[in-house]
Amino acid sequence: MDKTQWNERIKLIEKTLVSELQMENALDDRLCESMQYSLMAGGKRLRPILVMAAADAVGAVGTDFIHIACALEMIHTYSLIHDDLPAMDNDDYRRGKLTNHKVYGDGMAILAGDALLTQAFEVILRQENVDQATLLRVVREIAVGAGPNGMVGGQAIDLESEGKQQAMDLKDLQRMHGAKTGALFKAAIRSGAIVAGASEEELAALTKYADCFGLAFQITDDILDVIGDEKIIGKPVGSDQRNDKSTYVSLTSLESAQKLASDTVAEAIASLEMFGDKAAFLRELVEYLLNRNK
Amino acid sequence: MDKTQWNERIKLIEKTLVSELQMENALDDRLCESMQYSLMAGGKRLRPILVMAAADAVGAVGTDFIHIACALEMIHTYSLIHDDLPAMDNDDYRRGKLTNHKVYGDGMAILAGDALLTQAFEVILRQENVDQATLLRVVREIAVGAGPNGMVGGQAIDLESEGKQQAMDLKDLQRMHGAKTGALFKAAIRSGAIVAGASEEELAALTKYADCFGLAFQITDDILDVIGDEKIIGKPVGSDQRNDKSTYVSLTSLESAQKLASDTVAEAIASLEMFGDKAAFLRELVEYLLNRNK
Repeated sequence: MDKTQWNERIKLIEKTLVSELQMENALDDRLCESMQYSLMAGGKRLRPILVMAAADAVGAVGTDFIHIACALEMIHTYSLIHDDLPAMDNDDYRRGKLTNHKVYGDGMAILAGDALLTQAFEVILRQENVDQATLLRVVREIAVGAGPNGMVGGQAIDLESEGKQQAMDLKDLQRMHGAKTGALFKAAIRSGAIVAGASEEELAALTKYADCFGLAFQITDDILDVIGDEKIIGKPVGSDQRNDKSTYVSLTSLESAQKLASDTVAEAIASLEMFGDKAAFLRELVEYLLNRNK
Repeated sequence: MDKTQWNERIKLIEKTLVSELQMENALDDRLCESMQYSLMAGGKRLRPILVMAAADAVGAVGTDFIHIACALEMIHTYSLIHDDLPAMDNDDYRRGKLTNHKVYGDGMAILAGDALLTQAFEVILRQENVDQATLLRVVREIAVGAGPNGMVGGQAIDLESEGKQQAMDLKDLQRMHGAKTGALFKAAIRSGAIVAGASEEELAALTKYADCFGLAFQITDDILDVIGDEKIIGKPVGSDQRNDKSTYVSLTSLESAQKLASDTVAEAIASLEMFGDKAAFLRELVEYLLNRNK
């Protein structure tokens, strides 16, 4: 695929994230350093990219909503920092770099996550080109998607499932991931659609796309843990199996998981029909999931 | 003092907090239980009470802003849960009850804090009787007060000061507490004033009151750690001294700290002059700090 637009937008996102951190005015330098360390650790920036691509699909200019896009990335980053803590997944590496708590200590990592989450709401409010009612609606979408009935709720289900003798079934797995990773993807895509002035019908179609995107993301993530290249994905492969984690591969088979991923991507693309060429980037993004190597 | 109004409002706050948790629709029951455990652990509910009392002072009816008030309590509660974690203060008891992580484990306590912080922003948006522009202004006040240049920043300074050979000086101590506890008091009081339609002059006076309130709160907290009754405050006394913490008492003397507290309370009361009788409750609240036993 042509990754030019994607890469250009990643540059814009990273530039904006750095400037939003306002390092020069930090109350506490080390806290700010710790936030920046994880925020600038690279990555595909899928959530902000999805905000913008959804806005494009509705006929707006995605980059006009850079602040809302960046807020989603800040929330995603906080969730990774907390997820990596010894009390949670206890991971030492992420994207080939030491995790936040390995560099700054557990206490500072907790605070860096807290700070990113809180500041994300401040950053949303710096969004221009959006009327007040719409901005309030976006704050609500994002708070609900990231909260106890969304992302954090999914993390809690995941945490409780660890060490349990009984494996999850496919339905439980889908419910957990639908919240843990799906809800924030959905908040990103719906926020982009809403600020672009989507009709009810357009919003419903993009919500359907978001659900498929989240599911395809998770299935391909589980597949990568089996067949991925450790050097490229930046973390050890096979860790799900070693940790006895229920995954789409472990609960079905590698072949079935690949088939489900490809069907889900087709469904995502079908939901974009009404948007025509304006949804070209959203199509590329979900197709990329099938072929990704990290 | 007459605590009738205070107690009535505490009842309203606690009733609203329980109903906002929406236990019956929880994605994950244990996460919701863990949030409720700390949210319902009692306490003086100072922050929501201050939201309402500030609104009263400006001539509105404080209880009309119960959702904003409750959001502040949710943010305060999240900060206590994270602060008590082994990676931070490592406290086993708070208000005479086991701390969240001692009951639910460190991972769930981290998530309960994350969930309370996130849901607080959802709860703010359920506030009625406030126009959209004002509501956005309140979201900003609270995000800034709770974020890296407010409460979390103060916690980071506190975390870094631990185990340092050199004691803080009074100026550093004031800067740390001004952020760690003062910023959220200020956000509460300013939010109450703003939703009540305060003029610039009224807002400035209440901001001055908030600064004094935060300072008086901290000084009296330090005094209680020396002369308080363990059974009443619900945690061991003398812990600051054992942990070599810099406090207003350790950096001056018990007598000087008492004098500073009483001068600060007088200053807070002086800042309320323009509000006349409408500020009666704000006066009582800051006077209570001088005589509190927990």
